[in-house]
Amino acid sequence: MPNVVDADTIFKELKTHSISEFFRKNSQMLGYSGKVRSLTTVVHEYVTNSLDACEEANILPYISVRISEISDSKYSVVVSDNGPGIPEKMMGRVLATVLSGTKFHRYVQQRGQQGIGGSGCTLFSLITTGKPIHVKSGTGKAAYECDLTIDIKSNKPLITNMAAIDKSFRGLEIYGEFGDVKYENSDHGVYEYLRRTALSNPHATIKLVDPENKSYDFARAVDELPKKPKVTKPHPLGISTNDLIEFAHMSESRKISSFLVDTFSRLSQNKVDELRGIVSDLDFDKDPKRMTWDESDRLVKAFKQVKWIAPDLDSLSTIGERQVRATIKNILNPQFMSVIERRPKVFSGGIPFSVEAGIAYGGNAGKETGDGSQGVLIRFANKVPLLFDGSICAITSAVNGVDWKRYGIKEFDKEPISVMVNVSSIYVPYSGVGKQAVSQEAEIVEEIKLAVMECARELQRYMSGEKNKSIQSSRYNTIMRYVSQLASNLNEITGVKREEIEKDLKSLISSRYKKLLEDEAADNAAEDEAEEGTDEPEGEGEE
Amino acid sequence: MPNVVDADTIFKELKTHSISEFFRKNSQMLGYSGKVRSLTTVVHEYVTNSLDACEEANILPYISVRISEISDSKYSVVVSDNGPGIPEKMMGRVLATVLSGTKFHRYVQQRGQQGIGGSGCTLFSLITTGKPIHVKSGTGKAAYECDLTIDIKSNKPLITNMAAIDKSFRGLEIYGEFGDVKYENSDHGVYEYLRRTALSNPHATIKLVDPENKSYDFARAVDELPKKPKVTKPHPLGISTNDLIEFAHMSESRKISSFLVDTFSRLSQNKVDELRGIVSDLDFDKDPKRMTWDESDRLVKAFKQVKWIAPDLDSLSTIGERQVRATIKNILNPQFMSVIERRPKVFSGGIPFSVEAGIAYGGNAGKETGDGSQGVLIRFANKVPLLFDGSICAITSAVNGVDWKRYGIKEFDKEPISVMVNVSSIYVPYSGVGKQAVSQEAEIVEEIKLAVMECARELQRYMSGEKNKSIQSSRYNTIMRYVSQLASNLNEITGVKREEIEKDLKSLISSRYKKLLEDEAADNAAEDEAEEGTDEPEGEGEE
Repeated sequence: MPNVVDADTIFKELKTHSISEFFRKNSQMLGYSGKVRSLTTVVHEYVTNSLDACEEANILPYISVRISEISDSKYSVVVSDNGPGIPEKMMGRVLATVLSGTKFHRYVQQRGQQGIGGSGCTLFSLITTGKPIHVKSGTGKAAYECDLTIDIKSNKPLITNMAAIDKSFRGLEIYGEFGDVKYENSDHGVYEYLRRTALSNPHATIKLVDPENKSYDFARAVDELPKKPKVTKPHPLGISTNDLIEFAHMSESRKISSFLVDTFSRLSQNKVDELRGIVSDLDFDKDPKRMTWDESDRLVKAFKQVKWIAPDLDSLSTIGERQVRATIKNILNPQFMSVIERRPKVFSGGIPFSVEAGIAYGGNAGKETGDGSQGVLIRFANKVPLLFDGSICAITSAVNGVDWKRYGIKEFDKEPISVMVNVSSIYVPYSGVGKQAVSQEAEIVEEIKLAVMECARELQRYMSGEKNKSIQSSRYNTIMRYVSQLASNLNEITGVKREEIEKDLKSLISSRYKKLLEDEAADNAAEDEAEEGTDEPEGEGEE
Repeated sequence: MPNVVDADTIFKELKTHSISEFFRKNSQMLGYSGKVRSLTTVVHEYVTNSLDACEEANILPYISVRISEISDSKYSVVVSDNGPGIPEKMMGRVLATVLSGTKFHRYVQQRGQQGIGGSGCTLFSLITTGKPIHVKSGTGKAAYECDLTIDIKSNKPLITNMAAIDKSFRGLEIYGEFGDVKYENSDHGVYEYLRRTALSNPHATIKLVDPENKSYDFARAVDELPKKPKVTKPHPLGISTNDLIEFAHMSESRKISSFLVDTFSRLSQNKVDELRGIVSDLDFDKDPKRMTWDESDRLVKAFKQVKWIAPDLDSLSTIGERQVRATIKNILNPQFMSVIERRPKVFSGGIPFSVEAGIAYGGNAGKETGDGSQGVLIRFANKVPLLFDGSICAITSAVNGVDWKRYGIKEFDKEPISVMVNVSSIYVPYSGVGKQAVSQEAEIVEEIKLAVMECARELQRYMSGEKNKSIQSSRYNTIMRYVSQLASNLNEITGVKREEIEKDLKSLISSRYKKLLEDEAADNAAEDEAEEGTDEPEGEGEE
């Protein structure tokens, strides 16, 4: 047995690392794994930032993406927008400091959240090509260009070749070179990513020039900006003890009572009185800075016993039912579609979220395979398409949890059906830093399932109508086949012309038959109404 | 249309965040999502650290885990080991500073890599219970105990109640309280995690006391430490341009030629001469600190044109074929098993890795379901069981890619079969910070698939033998059924006693039949030999 090594020897090499070093070694955690995915990740990060910046600046986005092949597995990417630009003194921190950003601490819905994406691209360019990215920015007041990269050891920006450019330049243009990437026309490629981005952002014009110099235009479908999400306050429901104590200790309020009213949405003085009744031994006049863990814990438990108004929809920016319908029609042109937007709910942390879902059937819905159609799931979070890691996503799990047979879909995998889901929230709990899957929080999975089931009920009505139609049309055809024969026989008996009898018979049967059809359809609808609501899982009621 | 907002307004709230803040908000990325998974993650992090520390100190590990329920969804966890302990002045950085550690920059195989796990537990305890963790440590020279937590804003440790304790205390004991967790006896629970850890670490004794005070002992099966992995040098194959330039710029060597020999394994002076021939215009006498990206790039390309000896197995610490066999027999007691350890390979970054695989069939292999058996995949990376995120793991993807029908397994999901795979490497590319899935790098998926297929070929031989046996045994039974009848007839003809004739006939048929069986088995084996190697995908040859 070898000699025992002591702790001093083992720990003498202890070091603390920068977050840049961590992601340099683990770039796959940012979505840089696989050549196709890596290129899509770059485009995703830049386009997401552009959309956020334009929306925040109240500008209808015009975003252009150009991808060129430099050499084998090496491409350049140019993304330009008509957004507000980035002030010169902020540039280094926005695009070359991992974990810097304006969004992380704000309570408002945006696509980006973490302050990682843009700097991650800079890092990925550096480690695959050794090159800085080149940036042009015009804010209206000033315009400049520069080269930008990251000092990995310190997670600090390195800016070179800073120069003023013509002040008329507006917006942001980023040029980067990336190695270990590949442009491919697949479900996971840049084209599909931008197509889906256009689907969920009908107010944006998005242009793509691909490496073969082919140009694609996704023109805007609506000329108005989406309702701007309000910066909001957290909702008391589901907030954690740690959240509450952290808010309390940062609070400027003098008393716990006023702190509660100031900090949370839907928390009025009346509600404070209600809470006093539940946590009777808590001193609500105490300085919130001195709130203990135990007090916070009791308050959080009391929150759960009070009836709250649901969180405000204004804090969420959804795609919108009308836009979803227009988009589905536009892209999939289905025989049938059903779209719904659910009321916002909250999940742990007092964070409101809402789910939109759409089902399209027939037309270009689903995916053509060698032998028939295949169901397709199109996932979005805060209007950003999610192309990867579907198997661990809350949306996939919810859709797989639907008993499709109940809705007239024998096998989801074998029908011309597309299901589209968008989860909107101030804070979407992604399962990884690469933000390609929504973590499977029970409340979110549940809500998605309810949304999809609500659409599916309409689908079921349509499908059973189709089924009746096809059963009855075959009955109709059977009868019609006998009409000629019957007409001949009647002609022999009555001497009336065969053609005339046939015509009379046909019109008689048609009209009778039509009446019959309508009656049956009405009966079916009534049955559906009666059944409705029975497949809602528990917990569906109002908060 | 609302007014345009300018860049200064938008970016005035720009902030840089600490990595602790990031993981406080995104603890699900560390594996803290879902109550059962969160508890398993805590145990996983502590036990992993204990195993690493014991191995590094050359101590046979004795690890004890005790879990108690404090209140609903709140549990305490105590993990203690007989390892080297942690020196007092290092404690804060080891267990309360995210991204601090001894392992991140070292080129040696260990379970932990990132300097996140232990501090992540401290963070999770803080945000779910508001409590510090309590630590006792004895290094032999000194022993102490203290409370420890993280200042989230600065990612710095906060140590309180530091006190010396009796010097006889050796090893490390961590007590933590955790909220939003749950103990459950399931495939994803603590018991199963420890059982699998014992499976892959037969040199460790692991003890569990569960919340019902039931005690489980996984006693060590071998009394020797696994071969200690050597601190090694990177292998030239697959190393990236960025890696090479980074090594060059940190190098103390005066010339590129000596830098290459000093930095990489298998890179002798002879190989430098070979490289000179390929990159003829590169000045190998140049100071490596002045190496350009382009020069690095050309060298990396030249590396790929040279024939290299495969990386050294000494840098890898595998479970070992004998141990895997013992373990499978011990736990699954199967009718058949096949185990192999593949030669080490490299994947991008010049990083050696090796794959061990085992297949067990029958006995306790697979999983009992209501109606029959179900195939089970048991995944390990560096001997650490992976219980979550199977659907995005390279191991799952490789095993799903095997055409099981070829090997006599009609449906993997419906057979009493267990497949066990361990991927060992200095740097396992995990798909997320929570380290529950191996990223699907093509070279790794390929290698796992080859390993599993190699085992599966043996399984196929066994299965076809079983099939022959069952076909022939039914023939045998058919013949035997006629023996009695035949004996009666012969008795009538010959007058010899029926019992005697029957006995003679039976022994005659048995011996003839046995010969026949052996001949057929030999034929089958010969056919298998001839077929072998035909299902090896391209790229299987030696480097």
